Formats: sequence, C-alpha cells, structure tokens
Amino acid sequence: MGLLRDEGVVYKAVNEVDVSPESDHVYVKANVKAPRMAGFVVKIFVWLLEMPILGQVLSYFLKKNNLIQKLVTRAKLEEPPLFVPLHPYEDLNEQQVKPISSDLSPPEQVQEAIDCLPSSLPSHKPKFHRWTILDYARAYSSGEITPLMIAERFIAAILESSNPPLQMSFFINYDAKDILRQATESTLRYEKGQPISVLDGVPIAIKDEIDCSPYPTTGGTKWLPKLRPCTADACCVARLRQCGAVLVGKTNMHELGAGTSGINPHYGITRNPYDTNKISGGSSSGSAAVVSSGLCPVALGVDGGGSVRMPAALCGVVGFKPTFARVPLSGVLPFNWTVGMVGILASTVEDAFIAYAAINGPLPTPPSLPKVYFPLLKSTIPISDIRLAKYGEWFNDSTNDIRICCSSALDQLCEHYNWKTIAVTIPEIEAMRLAHYMTIGSECTTSLSSYLEKLNYAEIGWDARVALGVYGAFSSNDYIKAQKMRNRQMQIHKKIFDKADAIVVPTTGVTAYPIKDDASKTGELDYINGAALIRYSIAGNFLGLPAVTIPVGYDKAGLPIGLQFIGKPWSEPTLIHIAFAMQALRIADYRKPNVFYDLLRNE
Amino acid sequence: MGLLRDEGVVYKAVNEVDVSPESDHVYVKANVKAPRMAGFVVKIFVWLLEMPILGQVLSYFLKKNNLIQKLVTRAKLEEPPLFVPLHPYEDLNEQQVKPISSDLSPPEQVQEAIDCLPSSLPSHKPKFHRWTILDYARAYSSGEITPLMIAERFIAAILESSNPPLQMSFFINYDAKDILRQATESTLRYEKGQPISVLDGVPIAIKDEIDCSPYPTTGGTKWLPKLRPCTADACCVARLRQCGAVLVGKTNMHELGAGTSGINPHYGITRNPYDTNKISGGSSSGSAAVVSSGLCPVALGVDGGGSVRMPAALCGVVGFKPTFARVPLSGVLPFNWTVGMVGILASTVEDAFIAYAAINGPLPTPPSLPKVYFPLLKSTIPISDIRLAKYGEWFNDSTNDIRICCSSALDQLCEHYNWKTIAVTIPEIEAMRLAHYMTIGSECTTSLSSYLEKLNYAEIGWDARVALGVYGAFSSNDYIKAQKMRNRQMQIHKKIFDKADAIVVPTTGVTAYPIKDDASKTGELDYINGAALIRYSIAGNFLGLPAVTIPVGYDKAGLPIGLQFIGKPWSEPTLIHIAFAMQALRIADYRKPNVFYDLLRNE
Repeated sequence: MGLLRDEGVVYKAVNEVDVSPESDHVYVKANVKAPRMAGFVVKIFVWLLEMPILGQVLSYFLKKNNLIQKLVTRAKLEEPPLFVPLHPYEDLNEQQVKPISSDLSPPEQVQEAIDCLPSSLPSHKPKFHRWTILDYARAYSSGEITPLMIAERFIAAILESSNPPLQMSFFINYDAKDILRQATESTLRYEKGQPISVLDGVPIAIKDEIDCSPYPTTGGTKWLPKLRPCTADACCVARLRQCGAVLVGKTNMHELGAGTSGINPHYGITRNPYDTNKISGGSSSGSAAVVSSGLCPVALGVDGGGSVRMPAALCGVVGFKPTFARVPLSGVLPFNWTVGMVGILASTVEDAFIAYAAINGPLPTPPSLPKVYFPLLKSTIPISDIRLAKYGEWFNDSTNDIRICCSSALDQLCEHYNWKTIAVTIPEIEAMRLAHYMTIGSECTTSLSSYLEKLNYAEIGWDARVALGVYGAFSSNDYIKAQKMRNRQMQIHKKIFDKADAIVVPTTGVTAYPIKDDASKTGELDYINGAALIRYSIAGNFLGLPAVTIPVGYDKAGLPIGLQFIGKPWSEPTLIHIAFAMQALRIADYRKPNVFYDLLRNE
Repeated sequence: MGLLRDEGVVYKAVNEVDVSPESDHVYVKANVKAPRMAGFVVKIFVWLLEMPILGQVLSYFLKKNNLIQKLVTRAKLEEPPLFVPLHPYEDLNEQQVKPISSDLSPPEQVQEAIDCLPSSLPSHKPKFHRWTILDYARAYSSGEITPLMIAERFIAAILESSNPPLQMSFFINYDAKDILRQATESTLRYEKGQPISVLDGVPIAIKDEIDCSPYPTTGGTKWLPKLRPCTADACCVARLRQCGAVLVGKTNMHELGAGTSGINPHYGITRNPYDTNKISGGSSSGSAAVVSSGLCPVALGVDGGGSVRMPAALCGVVGFKPTFARVPLSGVLPFNWTVGMVGILASTVEDAFIAYAAINGPLPTPPSLPKVYFPLLKSTIPISDIRLAKYGEWFNDSTNDIRICCSSALDQLCEHYNWKTIAVTIPEIEAMRLAHYMTIGSECTTSLSSYLEKLNYAEIGWDARVALGVYGAFSSNDYIKAQKMRNRQMQIHKKIFDKADAIVVPTTGVTAYPIKDDASKTGELDYINGAALIRYSIAGNFLGLPAVTIPVGYDKAGLPIGLQFIGKPWSEPTLIHIAFAMQALRIADYRKPNVFYDLLRNE
C-alpha cells in the first residue's frame, strides 16, 4: 500500500457504456508478455516461486506492474461484487419450446427430447457422419449389432489407440471387465425388448474430473485419488447410468484442469484425431478426442474456462455448456464453485441435446431454478427472427482461416433462415478474462489447499506447479475486485442481450497448435496460445451463460474450426435450436479425422 | 506453501455435529494474544506494517501461526463456499402476523405498524421512560408543543452536550438551519391538521455511514467525502423523510466502522450517557448515544459486526438488525457487501418496529425477497409456545453481572409467558468470529482500495491504519475459506433453529469499559475487549440473521446490560414479538442516564 504504481483504469458507469458498433471502446488484444516456457526453464521458475518469503517477494514483483493490476486490482468501478452468476428467470411462454415436468426420470426426460426431434434426418446426407445415439439405438433395436459387440470393438480400439504408433492417451482409466459387464446387461435388455432409453448400450466417456464408479477420480493428477477416494457416481453420471448408458472410462485431461493444451505429464498428451502432432486442447482433452475419433457419440466434460468448448472446437465436435447451476455439480471435483459447469461433448447437436435431457436436474432447492424447457426441433425452419450479436474485432483477432470460415458460416446461416446479424461492441473483455483467471485460480487454490499441505510437490507436474504458485498469490482484494468486474460484465452483457438473442463468435482464435518435444515431461506454459484459445469463451463461465460450439469448417492444414453461440441465461432451447440450424447447413462438409473408429461398421 | 506449520483443524461432517447440550464440542474462549496498544506503540506498529516488502514479510509471520490459520485458512471442511447469506423463504401463514402489501408507501407502512400496536401502554408505568415516537405524535397533534419547538430545544441540547464539560461528541455534522427548516415545514403540516405520519416532526439521527442530504458522508474519516461526495439521501433516509421525520444530522462513529470502541480521533470520543468516562461502543456509537440521552427516539446505524446491537446494549437502548437484504443498502457506504445491514437504535421496541416499517423496502428484484409481515402486538400474551435456545457457555463467558442479569431476565420471560428455554451447544463460534473478521476485513479493503491509493495516510487515524494493514494481508484463499465456514455455520444454525424459534444470548460479554487517556489521539487496539463486545453478535452478520437487543438491567457500576435474541431468517415478526414481551417485563426498572435531555418537557 502507498507505493507508487501504475494507476488503475477508471471505468465509466455501465449506463454510459456504449455496446453499439460506434462505441469508442478500444479493443485490447490479449496482452500476454510471458514467453512460452517448457523444460528446464519451468523447473527453475517453480523452484523460485515455491521458496518461502522469497517466493512471496517474487510474486509481489510479478504482480506489481502487470495488466491484472491495471485492469482489475487497481481499477475503479462502482459495481458491488457479484459472487455467483445465478440469474433471475421467468417462465417461458413460447411456441417453439416444450416445458418439462420436474418430476420426470432421466429416461423419461430423454424420451421427451426424442419427441422434440424431427422424425427424419436432413435430406442432404453428409459424406462423413459420426454414429449418433439414435444410430446406436436403431442398430441395437434391429438386432444387427449388440452393445456387447460394440463394447468389444471399443476395447480393441482403445488398446490400439493407446499403444505405439498412435499413443493417443485418450483415457486415464478404463476397466474392460466393467465395460463388458455393463454391455452384457444392456444386451440382455435389448434381447428382452426392454431397453431403458435410446441411451441404453451407448458408450459414454466421462472426464476424469467427475466421479464415476468403479474408477478413482484423478483430476489429471497422480495424487488426488489417494487423498479423496471416489465413493459413488456423480449426479450426472448416475443419471446417464439410469438411462442404460455404458460408462466406458475416465478421459484424460489437463492436470487439475489448470491449462488449455491437454498435455498431461502423468497420463500422456491427448493427441488430436485430425492430426496426432497437434494438441487436442483442454482441459476436457480426452472427452473431445474420444468423440472426435468415433469412440463415443457423447462424453462429459467440465467447463470452467472454455474447457469443454475449446477442445470440442479443436477436435471438430459439438461442445455444449448449459447455464450455471442447470446441471447439479455434486460429485464433480470442486476445483471451483462459481465458474464451472458440467458440459457435453457430442458428435451432433441432437446427441448433445439428448445427453442434456439425461443429465439436467434434479433441481436443487435452494437456489430455486427455472423450469426446464426443451426446443421443438421438428419444425423445418427451426426458429424465426433470431438476432445474432457479432463483435467484428473478435473475428479479426482470430487467424485468417478462422475469420473467413466463421464469417462465411454465419452469413450462410443468416441468409438461409432470414436471421439478422447485429453488429455490437463487447467492451472490456480482456479485463473479464483476467478477472475470470483470478477467480478460477483463487477458487482452485482454496479447493486444493488442504490436500496440498500433505503433498510431496514432486508428485505435481511442473506447469501445474507454476499455475498453483501464481493462483496462490492472489489477495482477497484481487478476488473481490474480480467479482465487481463480474457484476459489471453481467450488466454489459444484459445490454447486448437487449439487442440480440445470442452472441456469435469463433470458439477459438487459433486452431490446434503443434505438440513440441520439450513439453511432454514438464508440460508447457504458453499463455499466448492459451489466451487465444479461451478468450472468447469466458462469458460462458464468468457470467454463467449457456454456450454451444459446433464445427463449421477446417483451416488450410485441415484442422477443425468451431463457431460458438453464447446465449442469454437459461436460453438452452434457443441455443440448441440455433446450433441445430447451423449444423444442418454445414454437416455435409464434415471431414473424417485421421484417427477414427467406425464401431458400428467395425472399421 | 510447503512450509511446516501447525495443522489446520479437521472439521467433522455437519450431519455429525451435535448441537445438544451433551455435545462433546469444547467451548473456545476468544483466544486473543494481541496486547492492548495505544499511543506511541500503535504508531511504530503502523510504520512497520506499511513498509513495502518488509510489511509483507511482517504480515507473513503474523499470519503464520495464529488461530486464523488453524481454525479457518488451513482447516479442512467439506462445505462449498457460500458468499452471500441470502436465505430461501416461504410465505407465512400464521395467526399473529399481518402480511404487508409491497406497494404501500412508507407512511402507509408506518400506519400498518401503528395498527398492529396495543392501543394502550402497559399498566405498570415505568419510573423512567424515554419519549417515544407516539409521545411526540400525540404532543404535536394536541398542539401542546410543535416540531419547531422541539428542534430549537434539540439544537440547544446538542450545543450543550458538545462543549465542555460534557464533550459527548454525539454528532459529526448537524446543520441548525436545515433542522429548523424541516421542523418549520412539519409544524405547518400539524397546523393544517395534515401530518404525514406519526413520524412527522420526530427527530431522527443518521449514522455518518449513510447518505443524508445536505451532509457529506464521512464514514468517520476526514478524507472520504473529498473523494466520494454525497449527492442524495440513501434509500432508507429518503423513506424516513417521506414520513415527515426531521433528520437532525449525522452521528459519530468509529472511523471506517473498523472498531468497537467508538473512539474517533477526528471527531472525538462518543461518551456513554450513563457514564461519560466510559465508551459508548461502536461502530454506531453516536446513534446509540443520542437515543440513550433522549435526543432522538430513533436513530439509524449500520451493523456489519454487531455495530448496532453492541452500542445499543452499552448505552441501554433497543438495537434491531433485520435479516440480510431486508432493508435496501443503496446510499450506504459500501464498506462491505455481505455482512452489513442498516439497523435501528430506538428507545423502545415499538419505536424500532415503527422505524422498521418506514425503512423496509422497496424489494429489489433480483434477488427476490419474501413478503413483509408485521407482528400483531395487540394480544396480551404476545405469542405462544416460543422456544429459546440458550448456550450456557455464552452466559458463563460473560461478566458475573451480565450472566446474572441476563439469566434472571430470561427466566422471568419464560416463566411469565410459559415459554421454554432449550439448552443447546453452538459449536465453532470462535471460528465463525474469525471467518467473519476475514470477510469484513477483505471487503472493506476492496471497498476502499481505489480511495486509499490517492490518500495521504496521515489523514487516517492510527488504529484504522492498523486495521487496514491487517485487512489487506488476507489472501483470496483466506477469503474463500471463510465463505466455506459461512456455509457450514449456516447449516449448524439451521440445526439450532430446528429446535428453537430464536437464540437468546447476552448482547455483549462486558459492559462499557473506561476511556483511557492515551487513546484519544491514536485510538486504541483492544482486541480482547473488542472480541468480548462482539462475539455473540456475529451470526447476525455472517449468516444474515435478524437480531434484536433490549436493555434488561445494569451492572454494579450502573452500566446497562443488553439481552439479545437472534432469530431465524426473515423472522422479524417473531423477534419483535419476543422483544416486546421482554420489554414489558423489564421497562419498569429502566434507569435514567446521567446525560439526558427531556425534550418534550424541556428539561
């Protein structure tokens, strides 16, 4: 206190903030000065950061003059802190949604979702198509194949993909015996003509941040399960199990979810099925990659900072993050409490919707939550008069290929359905990204603090140790200031949503980048690529907004590009509708990944 | 991280916590090791604490081995953080309450409250009696006296009390012209036979933490109004003004609300009307003292850590803090966001009730709040079957005089109305006190951070500088851990409230203590007395529970003793009922303070 430092930004009153395209707000590119670090350099940095007192002094100087200080910690803003992004709500009274009774079982909710789907696929059959939940259900019901056969093929595929030359590192744990047992039971149900739901026998993978019996929950670490045993399924997993899904194991993830590359020093680098020399993105790396490679039509992830949507985009699949609190978090590792949400990685929008129907609920009270509505996707033109807010700078700040691909997809969408693009300015998003970083970092530190005391730090990966070192340096003032920023951005986004039904933005600013040799043991610190991967996704977490990414094309290297729609609070039905409409226009051009398992045809 | 330190406490699961009197929980007395500091010692401590880097190292060592580390920061507990003590609610369907429509104006709400009161005072007329709102209203209506006459007497009384020999330091600001103007307008209304409400012409004082035109809002400082001008009445003040109340000025308070003594180095020591050599308590020191000394039947305070109830008890008046969020905080200095609430200091329970009727509302949405209910106080036996939870250790940990007086009042209450005392154990309250301290300290730092940068620290009092130095040393982990503790205590208190309608406890563990000579310039740091003054009140703030203190007797030195009732969330009607019943039994023994102004009789 009292030292001479850079002045903090003085933010103007929210009612004076202009979100129109004429706004005088100057777009701030992610201003990351930290160089990429890997290998030996990371180790030295960790050694300094973890020293008592000296480490404190180091972090004092690190914090002294950076952008966090200027935009958040020392900033002046009037808004009171908003700690939890829980939104008010009203009952919907729209034509194109169906209210769902809160006392339905998971299989009943799944059936409601099925009833909302069109009875036939779009006429333009795509040249490449991942098998969907309904493909599995039809194949099982017709008897042409059984869940047990799929399970056997699945296990063979994992074995192949795990070993050289592929070494995809999709899974942290899977148990062939447990998979076969579930598949056998499902097969029996089909033989009796009594499948529980369309999910019966469908292989679903779970990010290793979510409890799922009989596996430990590692959170991508070697040590966490020793201190925190997994004793039961998480609520969302239990609901999938109630629908008859075959839970096929725990997918790889960035250690502690504390990074975006999916490079895990303990369980291997999850490779991108479209190019095995590229990252899959993180932290839900394995869940995105198994869906991309055809092993599962659906996998669960957790999205605390784009961690579902970003790997989904990089791996060319659908990624869906519901509104904060829409899916119960019980049984999910509490790495944070106010930004994370269970999310779904799926081959198609319909599959994401069906999985959402299975896992949403029961409504915890308190807090009371709005009624659940499903979108009626039966109509040909899914929904009318949609207005999509587009912030041009976000498109310009992405790579050329991403900008061109996403713009073209968006134009096609608006033209085809006669929807409108509304040009907007979304101010202060770099400040929001930093405030979110301070929030998730602080909550992660607290969540792990009692474990970390008992821990030999040598058991933690080097890049995770840097993350923990930085996370632990935030003050209570940093944290509360970030919550003031949350309130401010909530109001700014409310202004955007007064003009538009959803925000449309490239999911990531770059496509999957190369895995470098020095990263496999130490991980890497690449804040520049990291920021480019997550910066457009942050409102989904920090403001608890629902969001969905769907594949819309490929860059020149053939790597997938995702387009993201960020919706109003509780607007899942609209978002699913929009994503469904977008998919209908682009699915014909989908490409098959290099690593792909066609389990239904056993290719 | 990684240093060898004391292990944190491992808390058992809440469902295993025993709140019965047979609980094996060991009561922890406030374990304050800090010696009392004042004068030169405080200055040296401040000088060290504010040094760059060295100050950080000092606070590192201060934090290293203290009880905060053991009970909170390094403690292991499963509860997720609860950041805001906002409680769920149900509509009431009881005989003895009256639902209040949300569209009533403040004067209409006041009339509703009047209609709930018994038509006559209790038959045993007390020997000493402060003039109440209804006394003023009757006197004005009968024409025997006018608001203008009262205003003139009031101004004379302030002048006398401010100057030697008394030097009571009741007010930070008052404007005779503005008071006379309001009183003149009120007098005219009475002359026309059109008073707005029973509050018309009644002198009401406002703690200088609440905006009230035409005064600056100092928060007990010299510098804050230079950086934050007051531009309008706070919501609660505007509502009192709408009722016709004469707002007579801004009362003295502990600087920044960051202390419990009411010793303000800039505006003087608010002296206790019962003994001018004793403190009045804080931080709403002036508001308690003006009610005690007969200058106003009602004053507003703010209660972030017992700051209304504690000075009320020390000055022998009623102090009432509604449920968190029940009274809008707009226009109140945001020294914190999750523990503070506007509170009422009043001569009688009825006056607190009438003032509450005036200031509660409008309901902000979101968050949605429960309907307002008023207690029907007309019935002779106010309410039946009340169960009062009593934690024996709290009575034993108070001074002998307090223990005997409060126990006797409680026995008398239960005997007279045939209510029950339920023996309970309230575990972990010292941990709650520390978690609350970390919370209010962190929020205060954030609230002031942008001001403090611009400030010459010499303008801040010495004891406030120590508070700010300590407050600023909390980490984000400290803060979030404290919020986990909040959730835990919320659940523990829910268990208590399953057994009882309210908790009964002495308001303070000590009565008003002496003002020492060395404290007037530097303030003093007396954490031992401080903890004894506030430790029983913390649940009201940290858990957002409503609470009321009423005078029940005097210690051997003639200093007032308060008994506190802490209610379930949103149970204001029950609490008012209980306090009204208690008052009826004890009011006959009320004693007149040494400094007292009998404005209606002009004594």
